[in-house]
Amino acid sequence: MDVRAAVAWGAGKPMTIETVQLEGPRHGEVLIEMKATGVCHTDYFTLSGADPEGLFPTILGHEGAGVVVDVGPGVTSLKKGDHVIPLYTPECRECDYCLNPKTNLCQAIRSTQGQGLMPDGTSRFSMDGKMLHHYMGCSTFANYSVLPEIALAKIREDAPFDKVCYIGCGVTTGVGAVINTAKVEPGSNVVVFGLGGIGLNVIQGARMVGANKIIGVDLNDDRKALGEKFGMTDFVNPKDIDGDLVEALVDLTNGGADYSFECIGNVNTMRQALECCHKGWGVSVIVGVAGAGQEIATRPFQLVTGRVWKGTAFGGARGRTDVPQIVDWYMDGKINIDDLITHTMPLDDINSAFDLMHSGESIRSVVLY
Amino acid sequence: MDVRAAVAWGAGKPMTIETVQLEGPRHGEVLIEMKATGVCHTDYFTLSGADPEGLFPTILGHEGAGVVVDVGPGVTSLKKGDHVIPLYTPECRECDYCLNPKTNLCQAIRSTQGQGLMPDGTSRFSMDGKMLHHYMGCSTFANYSVLPEIALAKIREDAPFDKVCYIGCGVTTGVGAVINTAKVEPGSNVVVFGLGGIGLNVIQGARMVGANKIIGVDLNDDRKALGEKFGMTDFVNPKDIDGDLVEALVDLTNGGADYSFECIGNVNTMRQALECCHKGWGVSVIVGVAGAGQEIATRPFQLVTGRVWKGTAFGGARGRTDVPQIVDWYMDGKINIDDLITHTMPLDDINSAFDLMHSGESIRSVVLY
Repeated sequence: MDVRAAVAWGAGKPMTIETVQLEGPRHGEVLIEMKATGVCHTDYFTLSGADPEGLFPTILGHEGAGVVVDVGPGVTSLKKGDHVIPLYTPECRECDYCLNPKTNLCQAIRSTQGQGLMPDGTSRFSMDGKMLHHYMGCSTFANYSVLPEIALAKIREDAPFDKVCYIGCGVTTGVGAVINTAKVEPGSNVVVFGLGGIGLNVIQGARMVGANKIIGVDLNDDRKALGEKFGMTDFVNPKDIDGDLVEALVDLTNGGADYSFECIGNVNTMRQALECCHKGWGVSVIVGVAGAGQEIATRPFQLVTGRVWKGTAFGGARGRTDVPQIVDWYMDGKINIDDLITHTMPLDDINSAFDLMHSGESIRSVVLY
Repeated sequence: MDVRAAVAWGAGKPMTIETVQLEGPRHGEVLIEMKATGVCHTDYFTLSGADPEGLFPTILGHEGAGVVVDVGPGVTSLKKGDHVIPLYTPECRECDYCLNPKTNLCQAIRSTQGQGLMPDGTSRFSMDGKMLHHYMGCSTFANYSVLPEIALAKIREDAPFDKVCYIGCGVTTGVGAVINTAKVEPGSNVVVFGLGGIGLNVIQGARMVGANKIIGVDLNDDRKALGEKFGMTDFVNPKDIDGDLVEALVDLTNGGADYSFECIGNVNTMRQALECCHKGWGVSVIVGVAGAGQEIATRPFQLVTGRVWKGTAFGGARGRTDVPQIVDWYMDGKINIDDLITHTMPLDDINSAFDLMHSGESIRSVVLY
């Protein structure tokens, strides 16, 4: 079938809107009509060429929501008409990783997904006979896409696509980092570095679980009011600190953060996030993605005296199990997505989403199909 | 009273055996007759001058066992005749740290202990009127010493001093790192870097809790037989590996270690220990103490994909609570201390313990008073 998609042709080149060809679902696969998709910094990371594993040409996008229009043979958990959110981290419930309660990193289709292909090693997308790569197993920058059944979370039908699409990445990453990875307890003091589309979700996750102090750190003063709306209790702009930021944060938390989250992707703030943690029990979670080859460093004394350094991918969430629950939380008013979606646009204007991201104007842009 | 002690006069100088003066116990303090003391690498670290916080002149030693001979006013939990093990990490059971189940780093007397003084800010040791510093709150290289009540673990009276003194540091650090810090589960695969006095105790801790593969890594082939005696199932000498040690360890553990322990104090092996951990859930624990100012580094991707980096001090043990239990384990034959104590000597020969340590000849030397 013919579908409309934003095609990324190569590193650093703008995407163009094209009519491309999509094959129907094969065994274990599902055809989705995409209703909305967020535009995430990770899409830009790949488009820019900074992602060493980026493949072109491809159809980017990994933060969508849509409706099942067809299922391939062997599909048992989804049927035509089901509302779904694509999962770049699938949940097969059968691999060693899915069966280990300590991780969400299902490996069932890891290798082909990394090659921009479906699990059988081929692509469903092409243009004029030339293969286009899938992206993160999702390719939500197309009005139809084919995904493996294990990479789709079935969600309730009254949830608005133009909002819950954000649960496909940013919301779950931020809220999940708090709940699944850090396991923040009520009464904890939390420091969040970077008040963008992930950091603000960390903040509302921390508020939801009953954290006491929730301190946001950002160079952009405009983020203060927004942070407060999501539960931030204190704002620190490093520019306003005389002296050492880490010391200032340790003072503000009366000895250090119980939990800190780095949501920028900067290896220097990753170190600050660790070192502002409380001696004896502070846990720092890396959420941001650093540039290729960059390294984090600290003195081992920081760990020997009880700080823990960990990271999270997709907020430690098992998508088919956890994403529907986060949709419920949104529908119940426990988390706020509406105020994070600052811009919407048709597919034709998708490139402008990156401009809004870089100017700091948007938190999240959503493409409406 | 006059007591006999090894006095460390300055960085890099051998200790000399002297008659020094010891004041009796003040409020909350206890006078101990030392019966035996281990000689640990940390004593050497300070004597060598590498410890930036080292103070001289001092009486080193922190791995002792002895008998209470007098108690000061206000002491309620100990009486004359009790058998005790000194604790360089005390347990006051009242401070914010003791009351937080996530840490063992009691801070009650941290500041004075770091200054080489008793909690009231003075020293009990002197020589010809000149003050001598306490060391790590213990100073076990003297046949009598004064310690705060909160820094003494009461142990059973049938336990031999010349063996259980080792529980005052090395045994508890190694076994505790497994049990308290990593919380290794039965069936886990474990990699231990460095088969010295700490690493071998990590190995027997891992065996005690039912680990499957227990892989020891050491440059000294002589440690293979010893490691096996303590439960090691596989030995890797990095010299024998063609190519990358981390890859070899990942292969040997079928994807990576569930838990790894660095017991050397080398920042390069700390990185290897982290990176040989299993994606998704591997936990690496730093036990060794690195040189002043040295830093650990890795790519944040290692953490984002589920590895956890942490550290441990005194094996995460709360001394007054946990040390008596480890003494019981020794007396019940659950852990082996006898084969780790390779040399004994009188106090007069204590300097030879450092030579035996550096030649790799000893695992642990114990001074018998």
